[in-house]
Amino acid sequence: MRMLRFLTAGESHGPELTAIVEGLPSRLPIRSALIDEQLRRRQQGHGRGGRMRIESDRVEITSGLRFGLTLGTPLTMRIRNRDWENWKTKMAVEGDPPPEAKPVTKPRPGHADLAGVLKYNHDDVRNVLERSSARNTATLVAVGSVARQLLAPFGIRIFSHVVEIGGVEAKKFPKTLEQIADAAELSTVRCADPEAAEKMVEAIDQARREGNTLGGVFEVVALGVPPGLGSYAHPDRRLDGRLAGALMSIQAIKGVEVGLGFTAARLPGSEVHDEIGYDPEKGYTRDTNHAGGIEGGVSNGQPVVVRAAMKPIPTLYKPLRSVDIHSKESFQASVERSDTCAVPAAAVVGEAMTAWVLALCFREKFSGDSLEEVKAQYRAYMEMVSRR
Amino acid sequence: MRMLRFLTAGESHGPELTAIVEGLPSRLPIRSALIDEQLRRRQQGHGRGGRMRIESDRVEITSGLRFGLTLGTPLTMRIRNRDWENWKTKMAVEGDPPPEAKPVTKPRPGHADLAGVLKYNHDDVRNVLERSSARNTATLVAVGSVARQLLAPFGIRIFSHVVEIGGVEAKKFPKTLEQIADAAELSTVRCADPEAAEKMVEAIDQARREGNTLGGVFEVVALGVPPGLGSYAHPDRRLDGRLAGALMSIQAIKGVEVGLGFTAARLPGSEVHDEIGYDPEKGYTRDTNHAGGIEGGVSNGQPVVVRAAMKPIPTLYKPLRSVDIHSKESFQASVERSDTCAVPAAAVVGEAMTAWVLALCFREKFSGDSLEEVKAQYRAYMEMVSRR
Amino acid sequence: MRMLRFLTAGESHGPELTAIVEGLPSRLPIRSALIDEQLRRRQQGHGRGGRMRIESDRVEITSGLRFGLTLGTPLTMRIRNRDWENWKTKMAVEGDPPPEAKPVTKPRPGHADLAGVLKYNHDDVRNVLERSSARNTATLVAVGSVARQLLAPFGIRIFSHVVEIGGVEAKKFPKTLEQIADAAELSTVRCADPEAAEKMVEAIDQARREGNTLGGVFEVVALGVPPGLGSYAHPDRRLDGRLAGALMSIQAIKGVEVGLGFTAARLPGSEVHDEIGYDPEKGYTRDTNHAGGIEGGVSNGQPVVVRAAMKPIPTLYKPLRSVDIHSKESFQASVERSDTCAVPAAAVVGEAMTAWVLALCFREKFSGDSLEEVKAQYRAYMEMVSRR
Amino acid sequence: MRMLRFLTAGESHGPELTAIVEGLPSRLPIRSALIDEQLRRRQQGHGRGGRMRIESDRVEITSGLRFGLTLGTPLTMRIRNRDWENWKTKMAVEGDPPPEAKPVTKPRPGHADLAGVLKYNHDDVRNVLERSSARNTATLVAVGSVARQLLAPFGIRIFSHVVEIGGVEAKKFPKTLEQIADAAELSTVRCADPEAAEKMVEAIDQARREGNTLGGVFEVVALGVPPGLGSYAHPDRRLDGRLAGALMSIQAIKGVEVGLGFTAARLPGSEVHDEIGYDPEKGYTRDTNHAGGIEGGVSNGQPVVVRAAMKPIPTLYKPLRSVDIHSKESFQASVERSDTCAVPAAAVVGEAMTAWVLALCFREKFSGDSLEEVKAQYRAYMEMVSRR
Repeated sequence: MRMLRFLTAGESHGPELTAIVEGLPSRLPIRSALIDEQLRRRQQGHGRGGRMRIESDRVEITSGLRFGLTLGTPLTMRIRNRDWENWKTKMAVEGDPPPEAKPVTKPRPGHADLAGVLKYNHDDVRNVLERSSARNTATLVAVGSVARQLLAPFGIRIFSHVVEIGGVEAKKFPKTLEQIADAAELSTVRCADPEAAEKMVEAIDQARREGNTLGGVFEVVALGVPPGLGSYAHPDRRLDGRLAGALMSIQAIKGVEVGLGFTAARLPGSEVHDEIGYDPEKGYTRDTNHAGGIEGGVSNGQPVVVRAAMKPIPTLYKPLRSVDIHSKESFQASVERSDTCAVPAAAVVGEAMTAWVLALCFREKFSGDSLEEVKAQYRAYMEMVSRR
Repeated sequence: MRMLRFLTAGESHGPELTAIVEGLPSRLPIRSALIDEQLRRRQQGHGRGGRMRIESDRVEITSGLRFGLTLGTPLTMRIRNRDWENWKTKMAVEGDPPPEAKPVTKPRPGHADLAGVLKYNHDDVRNVLERSSARNTATLVAVGSVARQLLAPFGIRIFSHVVEIGGVEAKKFPKTLEQIADAAELSTVRCADPEAAEKMVEAIDQARREGNTLGGVFEVVALGVPPGLGSYAHPDRRLDGRLAGALMSIQAIKGVEVGLGFTAARLPGSEVHDEIGYDPEKGYTRDTNHAGGIEGGVSNGQPVVVRAAMKPIPTLYKPLRSVDIHSKESFQASVERSDTCAVPAAAVVGEAMTAWVLALCFREKFSGDSLEEVKAQYRAYMEMVSRR
Repeated sequence: MRMLRFLTAGESHGPELTAIVEGLPSRLPIRSALIDEQLRRRQQGHGRGGRMRIESDRVEITSGLRFGLTLGTPLTMRIRNRDWENWKTKMAVEGDPPPEAKPVTKPRPGHADLAGVLKYNHDDVRNVLERSSARNTATLVAVGSVARQLLAPFGIRIFSHVVEIGGVEAKKFPKTLEQIADAAELSTVRCADPEAAEKMVEAIDQARREGNTLGGVFEVVALGVPPGLGSYAHPDRRLDGRLAGALMSIQAIKGVEVGLGFTAARLPGSEVHDEIGYDPEKGYTRDTNHAGGIEGGVSNGQPVVVRAAMKPIPTLYKPLRSVDIHSKESFQASVERSDTCAVPAAAVVGEAMTAWVLALCFREKFSGDSLEEVKAQYRAYMEMVSRR
Repeated sequence: MRMLRFLTAGESHGPELTAIVEGLPSRLPIRSALIDEQLRRRQQGHGRGGRMRIESDRVEITSGLRFGLTLGTPLTMRIRNRDWENWKTKMAVEGDPPPEAKPVTKPRPGHADLAGVLKYNHDDVRNVLERSSARNTATLVAVGSVARQLLAPFGIRIFSHVVEIGGVEAKKFPKTLEQIADAAELSTVRCADPEAAEKMVEAIDQARREGNTLGGVFEVVALGVPPGLGSYAHPDRRLDGRLAGALMSIQAIKGVEVGLGFTAARLPGSEVHDEIGYDPEKGYTRDTNHAGGIEGGVSNGQPVVVRAAMKPIPTLYKPLRSVDIHSKESFQASVERSDTCAVPAAAVVGEAMTAWVLALCFREKFSGDSLEEVKAQYRAYMEMVSRR
């Protein structure tokens, strides 16, 4: 059985979203305010449409926590959908459909709509989009925040920054990763290069005016990751594989990189690998981190660096051609309200999934049942490492 | 429990590699000659060093098959390491280490060597590299060949082609995917663009002369995938996430894309999504396949297209700086024998992992216990789909 | 990944219990009234104490269902703890402990109390008992009711009856299994032998007067199970092993049997095995069902019959000796309010876990994504079976 | 992912049986001689037929071990079927069936034969029985021996003794568990009560003369299990449920008990629960162990005690009625060679499965990657426990 696992649930316009996280050690401080803070970060960013203002997500924890400390039992988080009152009859859990609940019959290109209708034999595209919607990344962010709070006592910190939107690339970064983190947090497009940020905002505004949408690339960095998470012993234990799987599972993500990523494919070997040094005080050292902190599927003690490419949101003002699933007639899919760019929000979801995978691998190595026990295990290992 | 699962085992210079595949339906024809054919494909490609000639892998099936048909029971595959005779004492399973088995103490940058030593508390880097070695992808190819033979009766075919090596990009492709498959198969670098292939060969030869290594990018395509594999219902059920996780788990892979991948992040929404048409005979149609056959984490009936970026092999003739784990002294890591480029081989491994993930998702949808039952399930579903 | 999985959460005196069930097909009718009916059955039975009157459990479904049909997405069920108002401060999720929340320091023999304190490093036994409590079987019953509703369209029906309480054995049963089911449902001790039932009631009343508690044995029967669920192909796929694991996981269960169970160990082989007949209309037939419907880990088409032994509830009016975890002083553990016998309730939980395991194995064989697809798969298989 | 997992494979008359164990820490001593010793124990016991003499199982380890220490990588074990030479053509992996390979068409009551034929759509009962055969418990014993060797450095020792055969019960036991272990080891029926053992041997001889078979009950005891393995936090984490599931998955097992088991259902609460004492030197103490070392699904530091009921072997000299699957004609199933009683052997398999589950739960608590790390984790926890 997995050391740490979660299930999430919830429809986009249903009463609420729910997540259960199982496998936390006992006596770990978890603060709902910190989860709310992550939920808030997910709802921000230049380029979001109207719905973000309706939602102002707050988590309610209903199990697994007492007086702010975990009990070692499953943690339940609920996030109410603030709009539920308006959807009560159209999304009623039981009872007959009301006359106003007309089925959605127009699948949108680029969404799960058509594939979902075929797979699940639905007559109403709403039955697909309610769950495939990016709204549901709110639970992932909540789960990720719990993972962060598990990693925090061990000095592991995760941040993200946007490196590209609609073809505009960030180029000038602050010197340290900590500074990049701080700069990104202050930017409305989560970009640490102020000049590029400005151009990204312009590109988004321009796209909005044209009824178009933009994608981009974000980078997630984890600091303080100890060496030895993940394994090469079996393919499914590798840290890089699990990170890639988790990031690619976020809505609209179409590419994932670790370290140099695709750039590594273009360089000769002599420029790609991170030479190894040794310092009596710090242990093994590296001057570069092209590997993104992972060699052979195992964390090597350097910052873990991953990147993900998000496609533009497929819900466009500009019409795309599609086919009505009942009449089979062609139509022009267009919408009245949507986000123009959600890359800064997706970066926050990316942080959450990265935190989750790191927490999972962390728990596989430090499996103690109470925070005190996990700490003792961590110390014992770090002491062993320091002697190597 | 998983519908379909495998474990692989084996050290690079141990007696043999082993794989067990569990969850196959009964009465499925499996031919070891087809597995051998895939093993052979993995061992080819311009840019390989000497070892490939020592190995000439053949599979031996020792369970799960009788008279060429699966029994519904676990299938065991053994691949002997031809070089074992020379390693018998240095890699002895039991008994004391012989005097000649001096520990390897020099971790190579870019390999699992150092991270593995720290994680597993090894004194001998050999204890890491024997398993982290790409040699072990032979079992993945064998497992993938079984997956292919499971998918074949349903018209699902998987091929790969190399689209970039050392910065040289393939640009002119044959018209159809089938033609690309055929052209790649004839190329020593598995590249369907003959001009690019020639330049790739030159780049490899040049790199070899310089004691350097090259990476690249390959694309895997799956034809005949029915709509409805994978799911948006829970993040870990998504087809794209699982494909990315499996591909990133292959040695030396640092990036993965689905469909347009990173390019999608640079284009406006109006140019990214695949418009939907309808043809009374064929059902829903698409003129483009930017999504790579996956929308919302679910296959949509189009060819599934993924790409992976491989870094250059880190074992260089050109020295890289590293540190002896015993003496802590710096040294220049250099080797006498190695591959220069293994991208064409990695592409074959990529096919295998793609086949595995598709087979897994296929089994989750068509879970019958005998081939006849799986076929009846497949037919019933395709008939339902055709009526939508 | 599992075809069907669930997570449950919730503390006994926390705000609510939660369950998420993932892996249901779409378009399956689920009625919360049927879940409530099962929750009600769990709360009944002669021998229950006061708390059962406080609780009157009702489920609230908050995801996965629309207009009474599943969406193919995770189903969330919430069951509020009616007593929560009185526990709000002592079980507060966050904030400091109030002065009145004195830690429980007296572990009760026969409960998880002491083992839980040691494992999770708790200072307060309440942090253990809140989750280890049998209160949490309410979620299992809710999950089981969903499983029943998945199995019902395929004619699979599950019932239970109590065959022993405090040494009083049921002996005279109605002729058919259906009649046993009906008789048990009418009995306050869920016993189909009215004479034995009367003696069981007396034994319970006597035990209550003496401040003692009673255990017993219940039997769960599943009718309509098709042949071929479970497998001998790998140990963890066996139906009998999974049923035993699930039943033994219910609080206070100390023994599990399939079919003849321990009696089979005492009889010669000639009296144990169920001879096979054939009827052109019905197919293969059996005159006996000593195997309890499972041969070689696979259902054989006969009713599945399992039994479980429940120990007496360890919370006694009669004192048991224990040790305060803070002072290490010995004390006499006694309580003021408790159930005397919970075997009839446990039987309902046993039905739920049996339903769950059958649903799991059913989904592994009939994995379709919509109810229509599952039905087509079921029909195709049953038709194949009828031709054998 | 599971901390520790295995897959086994192999047909009874195929070339060999195989097992892969994944998730072992590195640097753990594993001796194949200790595995062979367990394989030998499985092949013994009064009441076995001729095949046991053909087989004389020896394991060959082909991966995961070097110079007698684990590498932290998957461990492969092969056990050759000595009879393979005689079955080469009838059980050929590939190629056409030879004329002499006539299908077995007569399913034996009490075996997986008929259920397996229906499930997997086989025409030849041999395709079922080859894998459902108890022969395959050899791999479980090998896997269990590895688990034992993982637990041994932590003072955990597992033994078994037969407490009942064919209705003959063991009654007088040596005083200590260690003495019971030793006495059982010396008995040809693995029974620690010499008088009962003699009667068991007589009962077996009598049954053999009558062409009948006998079942029985064995007990498995694990000494030195630390408190805190398993959990009440989620049903599937419970130690008792996992033990029951594993034991019930052994061929021919129909009942499982923990501690008092079914007897607990008959006693009043005041006689069932183990009172808790405290000794400044030893910590918490118990005078009794009715719980079998598990309370609330968690080990409590007492010996873990489980029992399993084995039905008589269904392969009888005495004929049982069955039906030919091709002709549908009734026949009398009888055999020429078989065991009369395999309870002593099953007890050894029971030890193996108990060892496996304990190792699994042990690894979930002490997940270190090297033996040194696991030891540090174990010490840190035991020290924490000693302070409670």
